[in-house]
Amino acid sequence: MTPAVPVEGWEKAAADARQRVYDSIPAAWRLPAHLLEKASSSALKPSDCEGNDIGILSEKDISITTLLDVNELLTALAQGVWTALEVTTAICKRAAIAHQCTSCLTCFFPQEALDRAGELDRYLKTEGKVVGPLHGLPVSFKDLYGIKGKPSSIGLVSWLGNIVADDSLCAKATVEAGGILFAKTGTSQACLMVESINNIFGAIRNPHNPALSAGGSSGGEAALIAAKGSIVGFGTDGGGSIRFPAMFCGLWGLKCSKGRLPGKGLASTYDGSESVNAGLGPMSQSVSGLEVMLQTQLDAEPWLRDPGCIPMPWKEHEAVQNSRKLRVGIILDDGVVEPVAPVMRSMQTVMTKLAEAGHELIELPVQLTKDLHRRGTASAMKSNVQNGGRSVMKHIEASGEPVVPRTAVGSAQSLLTSEEIFANHMDRAKIAGEYAEIWQTFQLDAILAPAVAHPAPPHGQYISNSYATMYNMLDYVAGSIPVTTVQETDMPGSAWLQKEPYPRIEPVRFPYDLGDEEMKKLFTCRWNLRTIRGDDEGARRDYDSGKKSNESCLQI
Amino acid sequence: MTPAVPVEGWEKAAADARQRVYDSIPAAWRLPAHLLEKASSSALKPSDCEGNDIGILSEKDISITTLLDVNELLTALAQGVWTALEVTTAICKRAAIAHQCTSCLTCFFPQEALDRAGELDRYLKTEGKVVGPLHGLPVSFKDLYGIKGKPSSIGLVSWLGNIVADDSLCAKATVEAGGILFAKTGTSQACLMVESINNIFGAIRNPHNPALSAGGSSGGEAALIAAKGSIVGFGTDGGGSIRFPAMFCGLWGLKCSKGRLPGKGLASTYDGSESVNAGLGPMSQSVSGLEVMLQTQLDAEPWLRDPGCIPMPWKEHEAVQNSRKLRVGIILDDGVVEPVAPVMRSMQTVMTKLAEAGHELIELPVQLTKDLHRRGTASAMKSNVQNGGRSVMKHIEASGEPVVPRTAVGSAQSLLTSEEIFANHMDRAKIAGEYAEIWQTFQLDAILAPAVAHPAPPHGQYISNSYATMYNMLDYVAGSIPVTTVQETDMPGSAWLQKEPYPRIEPVRFPYDLGDEEMKKLFTCRWNLRTIRGDDEGARRDYDSGKKSNESCLQI
Repeated sequence: MTPAVPVEGWEKAAADARQRVYDSIPAAWRLPAHLLEKASSSALKPSDCEGNDIGILSEKDISITTLLDVNELLTALAQGVWTALEVTTAICKRAAIAHQCTSCLTCFFPQEALDRAGELDRYLKTEGKVVGPLHGLPVSFKDLYGIKGKPSSIGLVSWLGNIVADDSLCAKATVEAGGILFAKTGTSQACLMVESINNIFGAIRNPHNPALSAGGSSGGEAALIAAKGSIVGFGTDGGGSIRFPAMFCGLWGLKCSKGRLPGKGLASTYDGSESVNAGLGPMSQSVSGLEVMLQTQLDAEPWLRDPGCIPMPWKEHEAVQNSRKLRVGIILDDGVVEPVAPVMRSMQTVMTKLAEAGHELIELPVQLTKDLHRRGTASAMKSNVQNGGRSVMKHIEASGEPVVPRTAVGSAQSLLTSEEIFANHMDRAKIAGEYAEIWQTFQLDAILAPAVAHPAPPHGQYISNSYATMYNMLDYVAGSIPVTTVQETDMPGSAWLQKEPYPRIEPVRFPYDLGDEEMKKLFTCRWNLRTIRGDDEGARRDYDSGKKSNESCLQI
Repeated sequence: MTPAVPVEGWEKAAADARQRVYDSIPAAWRLPAHLLEKASSSALKPSDCEGNDIGILSEKDISITTLLDVNELLTALAQGVWTALEVTTAICKRAAIAHQCTSCLTCFFPQEALDRAGELDRYLKTEGKVVGPLHGLPVSFKDLYGIKGKPSSIGLVSWLGNIVADDSLCAKATVEAGGILFAKTGTSQACLMVESINNIFGAIRNPHNPALSAGGSSGGEAALIAAKGSIVGFGTDGGGSIRFPAMFCGLWGLKCSKGRLPGKGLASTYDGSESVNAGLGPMSQSVSGLEVMLQTQLDAEPWLRDPGCIPMPWKEHEAVQNSRKLRVGIILDDGVVEPVAPVMRSMQTVMTKLAEAGHELIELPVQLTKDLHRRGTASAMKSNVQNGGRSVMKHIEASGEPVVPRTAVGSAQSLLTSEEIFANHMDRAKIAGEYAEIWQTFQLDAILAPAVAHPAPPHGQYISNSYATMYNMLDYVAGSIPVTTVQETDMPGSAWLQKEPYPRIEPVRFPYDLGDEEMKKLFTCRWNLRTIRGDDEGARRDYDSGKKSNESCLQI
């Protein structure tokens, strides 16, 4: 934990930080003033800035960044089809555009990256071999991953001066394998919300539709990758923080179990509890990105340097075991919030594909799963705010910045005694045991469920993290996969509309998440069918402009 | 956690329980009254009961139980050299003797074991193959491992009626692999002391010298195995509870890290905290016993049935990697209590052997290790009693039995708030990080340190668990290996005698452990050199009778 530094005049400190990031963009990669203005009103997408009229991206830059498969890019780099300098230039240009459109970066250092790329090119030329498996690959990191000499502020004004003395282990392993560091990406305030809004960089905008949320807390990472300003990067996920942004932005995202990847060198307001199972993991436009990053990290044997890391190597035999028919348990509705139509359609799409491929689908009995998910969500919510704001409020108050609405800081109502905390651990273990019995009873290989019950909402209007947070509570490996985009035809059916909403879980203790009633209200409004709310027009405009590009991903 | 059952007249309930175990011994295996009386005054060793005059053990029984290597016994069973019935008979007879001499059993069911042995023999005969890798091997379990239909009372009178509905996963995997269950073994009161004294079965006596402690809390297991009443069994270790009894009784003992073996089906007063890293593990007369039991458990893939278990298989390549030269870090003195002469000699013995075998020994800098061990011991002590007695006192009070002296139940002085508990977790992580740097700096493969600072003491007079508990706090894999016995020449040197004692750690919060001053007093007294205490004569007699048989083992 980094101590908060008292800050006078937080608005000035925040503005200075924004300016520093802007100043780090080379002049040639800056957008003209009228476009910057358009961006600030959430009306400019990164893909609007590709043309010759803008003059930032060359044809080669576009070719390079069109390649989304990490293994293909690595092969091209190793074979000299493209130099590391060419790839890094293209990625950094895209990152500059992405930031100007979405506010996704907290730190950008293209010149250092280009210098390193040049060194790698010289090495390949003179030695005739690559430095390591990531030779020449630019890799981005969520803000809390320490990079030597760069700040880790994780959305807190009082942490803006937190210049890190050493690389986090994940960054170190990336560099040792030949990767290139070039940017750090934005989060929610102290990473405590599944969207990415803070008082320094504002709301991180979805590159597919800037009026919508990019998700969070790894939202900067998702926005950057979805805008092709990175091909692969690292996030963290203590309650959906990789899976929300991966789903909202249409990416592959993987949350490892706690301790699989090394947490050494990550900044956080962690208070020392063992109650929240946060996992690290990669996010990428391709599944190969997840694989290669995870394997590289594990091949570095991080457990030798981080005692919190489990000594479990990459399991090649599991990664290539793709001929076996799988038994996949299906959860369509967790009993907390019922997913909206495009999410249900994406579930059906994957189920059809899996069945066609010969895998067996088992719809898990809702009388078992709904009860477990409701209890599990309640347990996770209790854990998430059990210290009543102790760990984070001092860091917020140190600068005088306000709490961003819906940031899960905790309150006097959510404070638990140690006895209550440990009783909740016992509940958690009991739920985990019952869930394990489901795996045994149905002989499952995997579970397929929504990552989030709805696609990207307007900023600040997400509903609930129940589907995602359940698998933190259980400490499962969980990921999100891109499936489809919202379509005109994704209208809510009458059954969904008329169904009695599920009661809210822990609304006093955990007011940050909303419930099934709010879900139905928001999306009824957004489809303009029934309820008219004050912000209906705005919401409908948001929805209309986003409906073709929102990605809906599945959690597996 | 099993709820305490109110008990009226705890002495009667305890006496009934003792009687039940005695009644479970077949008449032919009972010792004559005069020997039972001798045993009750700690003057009868199991090895005194081997002769024809006693008439329990046949020559074949003695032959079978002379074989201490588990793999050799398994081979003999698989090849029909001995039948399962013969082996089980021999082991059960020895167990009956062991219990009568040392009070090591809580539950004994030889007839069920013999029936099962008969079935296994028939299977081998008719099918021509073994049921599994443990075919016909009797395996004992510490009392807290659930065995269907048997009580798990873990030294608590109020739990005497706790009849378990299902086998623990470890017992289940043992049976599925062809093992034979036949006995459960005694512990300290609620497993909260590193000797084995409770109000039901008294103090478990060391089979090598019944006037001395067998260690705890897995003391029944160690006494049984050292008395040849079992060849291999399972203990648990949250602060030395495998390593203490293994060292005092001269066995191999292995404490796995938390979650490596499945805790499902183990009884405890666990309160849901994540503060104490308790590990499960095997104890045996041979290193092959540790190997075969661990591999069998992991081959059963317990993580599929217990979500608290880490999916990490047996690593055959590490088990057979015995040609490589190792770099072994040496810790001779942890700065909490300075080991006595026989322990130092056993350290030197192993160091000499390792050096002769070409391994490199690195004596770790005491200015680093003493500080770390003192801080680590303090952190572990804080954790061990952080709930102030909340989790255990209700189970003790439910029967009205008294707290056994030195049982670490906690007190108002030791109660921590959640904030203090979590701050202690942060300290723990910091210490673990610093310790990991030592491994890195010196490129260590292993650490060699005393398991306990002294050999088996008279009952209730152990000094400190600092060496052992440190590796729970760090959650390392740790074991204890048998090296030597106490010799006439193991006299304390003048340097040891004259050295200023180290100050006690956490004496108010954790009064159960003693310190370096008490260590020097006890062993000065026991060597009859300087201080004369009230119990000097008794202590000297204990020492004299035990000095040739006490085992001193090394922690690795």
